[in-house]
Amino acid sequence: MKADEGAIGILGGVGPYAGLDLMRKIFNMTEAHSDQEHLPVIQFSLSGKIIDRTRFLLGDTEENPGEAIGEIMVRLARAGATVIGVPCNTAHSPRIMDVALARLQKEAPEVRFVHMIDAVMTAIHEMLPAARRIGVLSTKGTYATGLYQDALAKAGFSAVFPDADGRDRVQEAISNSQYGIKAQSNPVSPEARNILSDEAKKLVEQGAEGIILGCTEIPLALTEKSLHGVPLIDATNILARALILAFAPEKLKRS
Amino acid sequence: MKADEGAIGILGGVGPYAGLDLMRKIFNMTEAHSDQEHLPVIQFSLSGKIIDRTRFLLGDTEENPGEAIGEIMVRLARAGATVIGVPCNTAHSPRIMDVALARLQKEAPEVRFVHMIDAVMTAIHEMLPAARRIGVLSTKGTYATGLYQDALAKAGFSAVFPDADGRDRVQEAISNSQYGIKAQSNPVSPEARNILSDEAKKLVEQGAEGIILGCTEIPLALTEKSLHGVPLIDATNILARALILAFAPEKLKRS
Repeated sequence: MKADEGAIGILGGVGPYAGLDLMRKIFNMTEAHSDQEHLPVIQFSLSGKIIDRTRFLLGDTEENPGEAIGEIMVRLARAGATVIGVPCNTAHSPRIMDVALARLQKEAPEVRFVHMIDAVMTAIHEMLPAARRIGVLSTKGTYATGLYQDALAKAGFSAVFPDADGRDRVQEAISNSQYGIKAQSNPVSPEARNILSDEAKKLVEQGAEGIILGCTEIPLALTEKSLHGVPLIDATNILARALILAFAPEKLKRS
Repeated sequence: MKADEGAIGILGGVGPYAGLDLMRKIFNMTEAHSDQEHLPVIQFSLSGKIIDRTRFLLGDTEENPGEAIGEIMVRLARAGATVIGVPCNTAHSPRIMDVALARLQKEAPEVRFVHMIDAVMTAIHEMLPAARRIGVLSTKGTYATGLYQDALAKAGFSAVFPDADGRDRVQEAISNSQYGIKAQSNPVSPEARNILSDEAKKLVEQGAEGIILGCTEIPLALTEKSLHGVPLIDATNILARALILAFAPEKLKRS
């Protein structure tokens, strides 16, 4: 493998375990029977530099995490990445990602950014061509910014979300400093898992025909392929597949 | 966190899952309750550039993987790493690592390399101060080069290894293209796990008071803390701890 073949770049740290999960899913989906057959992957997990995405979107801080994300994308490009993915749904909110991508476009325009939310919409059309109502579990930041509401509407689906109380509970399952997935994912606490499973059930009762795990911490807790009778749509899995397709489509494992 | 605080650098890809395992163990051992409290970690997983270490040590190829390892260490340093670890025991054989470290010393002398084998010896003295015989499960390359035999002798222990047939079996558990851990680790195949457990048992029967998992693929199969009545000494775990101690000792989780 030559130096100029590039690499898949992972902007990790958002959160750290989501970055690991994406890297593992890339390795798992690669057609490889020895170390040497695996794809080149570079990950920067610089969590301390990137302020909480939800806090910014809810107005708790004026510091836009898109600045740091853009800076780290440029560092990834300089380190050799030619295709970049960000395993954080909330970071894809236009108020954050537009700032990051403007920086990347200016300083490393040759790099291809793989947009996780767009990849999820394409995957739903393939997986569930007849579906009309799609549920979403996400952070409050992702919810408040309308990221999935807008994307689903544009793709022809109607979005089903937890109610206000449910959204608070999902946020706690992700970021509570005691039992949240960001604080404790090895293993995930029963509290966090139960909240997510309960809220998923309520979405199914409201007619959801599939549920987007719309925060990259959630697949660490809900690892099954379907729950309460509907498929779970793992945004990290979809991003891993899209990154391999963008970098070296012939290396995608046939499953 | 400022740009000039540096980062822990992981030279991954040797193999890819060993790099992931090290990164996960660093996160698990870090005192952190939010994304922002985690340490900065940069991983380069460029497996295709690094020829099989055992093949070189056994004379099957003249290409020294230390050249590529040294080159990637320098790239890690340029990307911001200030402390570097390599989660591959075989790569620590002096015929490989001396070449890599000469390159690092020449081009990035400010970087601190954390030597996994030295860290393992220190850890055994702490964990098992009264032990005399220590077992080792490793690749044939690591065995042939005398890496652990020399390190254990210098540290005052006598080394216990599988016999020739056992060493062949351990190598297959690691690198067989069908059931080996490098080909299949999610989950590890029962064949690979059974071979390693059987060979561990034989080491205990020969008087081993602890067993070094001396290839970073092996902890993916033997995940328990002790087996057949003796502690398993996980070199990846010890490297993760040593990297945190070298980079930010105050962030090591008290366990």
